Amino acid sequence: MTNRIRILGVAGSLRAQSYNLMLLQAAQELLPAEVELEIYSLEDLPLYNQELEQDLPASVLRLKQAIKRADAILFTTPEYNYSIPGVLKNAIDWASRPGGESAWAGKPAAIAGASPGVLGTARAQYHLRQILVALDVTAVNQPEVMIGNASERFDANGRLVDDKSRHFFSLLLNNLLELIRRFPQKGGEDE
Amino acid sequence: MTNRIRILGVAGSLRAQSYNLMLLQAAQELLPAEVELEIYSLEDLPLYNQELEQDLPASVLRLKQAIKRADAILFTTPEYNYSIPGVLKNAIDWASRPGGESAWAGKPAAIAGASPGVLGTARAQYHLRQILVALDVTAVNQPEVMIGNASERFDANGRLVDDKSRHFFSLLLNNLLELIRRFPQKGGEDE
Amino acid sequence: MTNRIRILGVAGSLRAQSYNLMLLQAAQELLPAEVELEIYSLEDLPLYNQELEQDLPASVLRLKQAIKRADAILFTTPEYNYSIPGVLKNAIDWASRPGGESAWAGKPAAIAGASPGVLGTARAQYHLRQILVALDVTAVNQPEVMIGNASERFDANGRLVDDKSRHFFSLLLNNLLELIRRFPQKGGEDE
Amino acid sequence: MTNRIRILGVAGSLRAQSYNLMLLQAAQELLPAEVELEIYSLEDLPLYNQELEQDLPASVLRLKQAIKRADAILFTTPEYNYSIPGVLKNAIDWASRPGGESAWAGKPAAIAGASPGVLGTARAQYHLRQILVALDVTAVNQPEVMIGNASERFDANGRLVDDKSRHFFSLLLNNLLELIRRFPQKGGEDE
Repeated sequence: MTNRIRILGVAGSLRAQSYNLMLLQAAQELLPAEVELEIYSLEDLPLYNQELEQDLPASVLRLKQAIKRADAILFTTPEYNYSIPGVLKNAIDWASRPGGESAWAGKPAAIAGASPGVLGTARAQYHLRQILVALDVTAVNQPEVMIGNASERFDANGRLVDDKSRHFFSLLLNNLLELIRRFPQKGGEDE
Repeated sequence: MTNRIRILGVAGSLRAQSYNLMLLQAAQELLPAEVELEIYSLEDLPLYNQELEQDLPASVLRLKQAIKRADAILFTTPEYNYSIPGVLKNAIDWASRPGGESAWAGKPAAIAGASPGVLGTARAQYHLRQILVALDVTAVNQPEVMIGNASERFDANGRLVDDKSRHFFSLLLNNLLELIRRFPQKGGEDE
Repeated sequence: MTNRIRILGVAGSLRAQSYNLMLLQAAQELLPAEVELEIYSLEDLPLYNQELEQDLPASVLRLKQAIKRADAILFTTPEYNYSIPGVLKNAIDWASRPGGESAWAGKPAAIAGASPGVLGTARAQYHLRQILVALDVTAVNQPEVMIGNASERFDANGRLVDDKSRHFFSLLLNNLLELIRRFPQKGGEDE
Repeated sequence: MTNRIRILGVAGSLRAQSYNLMLLQAAQELLPAEVELEIYSLEDLPLYNQELEQDLPASVLRLKQAIKRADAILFTTPEYNYSIPGVLKNAIDWASRPGGESAWAGKPAAIAGASPGVLGTARAQYHLRQILVALDVTAVNQPEVMIGNASERFDANGRLVDDKSRHFFSLLLNNLLELIRRFPQKGGEDE
């Protein structure tokens, strides 16, 4: 048993070349070596249907266990139609169920996003923040990492190369580590 | 060819006993006979993935055609985690794609929701309203139909029996018909 | 009596050199000659206090009359602390009172904003849109005019000189005129 | 010098008989004896105008000092037109200025509201939560205290007498004290 900090990284896009997946990879690069960031794909989840709750699908159980094991969550999300993607909301909905057994409660979190547009996922991030109140997840306030014009911020290999973006994303990750110290989790040994 | 008004009814829940599906059935009962309300299920849509856009899935094409044919949209939505369900957002995302070919643009719409809780889907409805700005969908402002304590508002057969709820829902539907007159659609002959 | 269209322009900032006041002046320049835009200052309103409702202050009565006379409202707003300024909300609150005698109901509206920052008042505009649902004000959806980096968009005389900003602002104003045609007001003869 | 915890209580209404002022009085009753809750009135603030920043009005300086002295903020707010009152937003705007000298940064906070209606200020509270992200104020997530049908929850002397409301408000206040422990402030000795 170790005390290694584990962060679960969840991207709101399923696309292999997603900027928000690249952001999670940038976080792996920017975080201290002793912090583990697990990148979790949401692609195998079914559409939420309450009728499936009696016998939770294996993909949902896996997601819930990954959340429970984590000391914190890092959400990286694109913005679709002025909100978070249905894909991300679907995962949030599943992991909050059944009622009273949400996997999210009490976790610290940070939010970042990258998009080709100028607003850099701002609208999606504020919707996500309201959703986190429901989940009883405490998110880092500042700095907000909303990377616009994403095609200029990553190189051809998908590496975040923009200095300003790297600077603010590092600040955000540092503040997430600070938030983990303020809201320590029991960790996953017993899950 | 007729001038019959066609409304597309979209519920945010896949559950067979969904209160929001029952709301669509109540709308069929409350609307004038010459107005057709088609209830459309979102269950066969895949999770959105931009990589699938080159060859849109048949279920997505069907949804987009149903939207284009309609003179207006009636959204009935539960609230999950202080926002709309991922299931509904996923459908909205698909039908808005590919870029520049959204099926939603210019449609009039109305929003209603039913839930067991006291807030009656209020938070979900305001998120949906912001999303509709992105879609260039004009929604009826008032009255807002947020049916709380839903288990007391529907009978054992799923019929909306609460007088006050029926009254305000009728007002909403009338205001939707008025909005259709202000924003006439070309209709679906050529789709 | 004439049929001249009258738009009431309300800026959310009291500062004489406000970019949002300059935006209203740009609207006067961009609107067709037969449309009148009255720029209304909010500076003489007291802080809202329900106790003053029995005897509405003269400044409140003037604001309510100006709204009622108008065929539409053009809001230009800065963003303070991720929302609209207290100054603008205070005016909205006053003109909506007393209960049942709101001056706003049924008016068409358009929203624009300018700010030194990159997000260009986006967050303020979405808060304002939710407030407009309460007021039963129908706002133009698109285009959204969020002018960031405002110091580069206006010249030393306060004239909006950025071509792209002028283009989209003109589209917004045209869409407001279209919305006025869809939601005609009785006008102000009898107010 | 003492270690007594000081909470600043700010109500969004200026009315003497305001339910939200009564809520602050209920907090004084419910908090442990060693916690001081100062009720602060916003009535003497001018409307915000950037031109006044060179020489901040005395009422603004007093508000900023009261905030800086406090270990936490308790906001009790009515809902006007689906958002917080202009009066409250005006105070928030003032105390965040001039740029870089916000009095709010880093404070823990809790939000509650009471209203005659059924939604109990929910919409206002979510707008306030977004504003708090700008202010870098960390707010308690749960429970949310949204007291609807307020006329039945307080007695003729303005005392909160509804047991359920008292229970949840106490939980909220306890969680605020816990949040203060997680985000200790330097306190006001040196202000």
